[in-house]
Amino acid sequence: MDAKPRAVVLLSGGLDSATVLARATADGYECFALSVAYGQRHSAELEAARRVGAAAGVADHKLIRVDLGAIGGSALTDQRIDVPEDGGAGIPVTYVPARNTVMLSLALGYAETLGANDIFIGANAVDYSGYPDCRPEYIEAFERMANLATKAAVEGRTLSIRVPLIDLPKGDIIRLGTELGVDYSLTVSCYQADVDGRACGACDSCRIRREGFEAAGVADPTRYGS
Amino acid sequence: MDAKPRAVVLLSGGLDSATVLARATADGYECFALSVAYGQRHSAELEAARRVGAAAGVADHKLIRVDLGAIGGSALTDQRIDVPEDGGAGIPVTYVPARNTVMLSLALGYAETLGANDIFIGANAVDYSGYPDCRPEYIEAFERMANLATKAAVEGRTLSIRVPLIDLPKGDIIRLGTELGVDYSLTVSCYQADVDGRACGACDSCRIRREGFEAAGVADPTRYGS
Repeated sequence: MDAKPRAVVLLSGGLDSATVLARATADGYECFALSVAYGQRHSAELEAARRVGAAAGVADHKLIRVDLGAIGGSALTDQRIDVPEDGGAGIPVTYVPARNTVMLSLALGYAETLGANDIFIGANAVDYSGYPDCRPEYIEAFERMANLATKAAVEGRTLSIRVPLIDLPKGDIIRLGTELGVDYSLTVSCYQADVDGRACGACDSCRIRREGFEAAGVADPTRYGS
Repeated sequence: MDAKPRAVVLLSGGLDSATVLARATADGYECFALSVAYGQRHSAELEAARRVGAAAGVADHKLIRVDLGAIGGSALTDQRIDVPEDGGAGIPVTYVPARNTVMLSLALGYAETLGANDIFIGANAVDYSGYPDCRPEYIEAFERMANLATKAAVEGRTLSIRVPLIDLPKGDIIRLGTELGVDYSLTVSCYQADVDGRACGACDSCRIRREGFEAAGVADPTRYGS
């Protein structure tokens, strides 16, 4: 029997990345989770990521801390910008400058040390259409760059950035994950969850999540705060 | 009088990035230095970076810590791999997986928050020909990706990755920096400098640096340890 191919899976603790991890596992990969603590307010997500990874039986789970708060510019890392509760138009203030680029770069380094040819990320161009680094053309450009960046690429291996959720509405993501056995009660999506991972129920992320469970016709297991 | 255009300059504390900073300053940019502490052994470089930035009068200097040691794979971040002293063939074990990709990604985020359209990096394809992420085709691919990654790009700004040293031999870099007034005694290149920034004189980086001063016909101001 051949050994399973290795994959790095970016795991945030949220709903999307838990689904991606289930997809990669079901597709036969030996999964190595990578969580990036980028100075975000919602550190309850990191605890959720740990639980999600453990439940999925990942081969290993690394945490890398990067203080993106040092360069500011987002409501998620800059304490002076309020988290919005009204949807709004254009690119949200919760957009973190270069977040996916930084996370994919770290995943690229991890993949190289593991000898993994696949990186999975829960990027989604539907619900977060305002985030430039969730678009398919961005993902393709990153993949092309990655295939010039590494020793592995020079030695002839090809690296793929896998985005199985890129064009799925939230309801379809939840249906997929439910079929794959994801326990969404372990996940945290809220931008301002409390220390126990209870959601505010009011921010954009909570709204999108709640509407996703409604669309999927799946009971919402989210724990809301008082 | 127009305000100077802003640039982010990746500053390691080494000879190349000090020269790049002098180049960007001479070219009329308001320079914002970014140093990345990626778990490298030679933290004396970071103190050198601080001194080099201060001497050049940068507008600001940010330090971001990223623990690349958590994912291993390099003699510079992994204490179990010895730093080589013999040149050698192929890609050196001092190659850090995805290092330039991670550093450029952080610079991209910083540039976005500053409204800077230019990022300077001391990548060089001559002395470090074994590093895939120092090649011009890699830099071009990163630039293309970056122009799809950010809110700024979506809003019509074009970001450029500037690599003024990309094809210069070390001797030419030192001649250029000397003309621009760089004080190379502030810089540290050694892979295993001591806490006071004194160089070992034996590693590959020390050898390349020493040969560079010889080729440039410039007195070597490097402080060597005992």
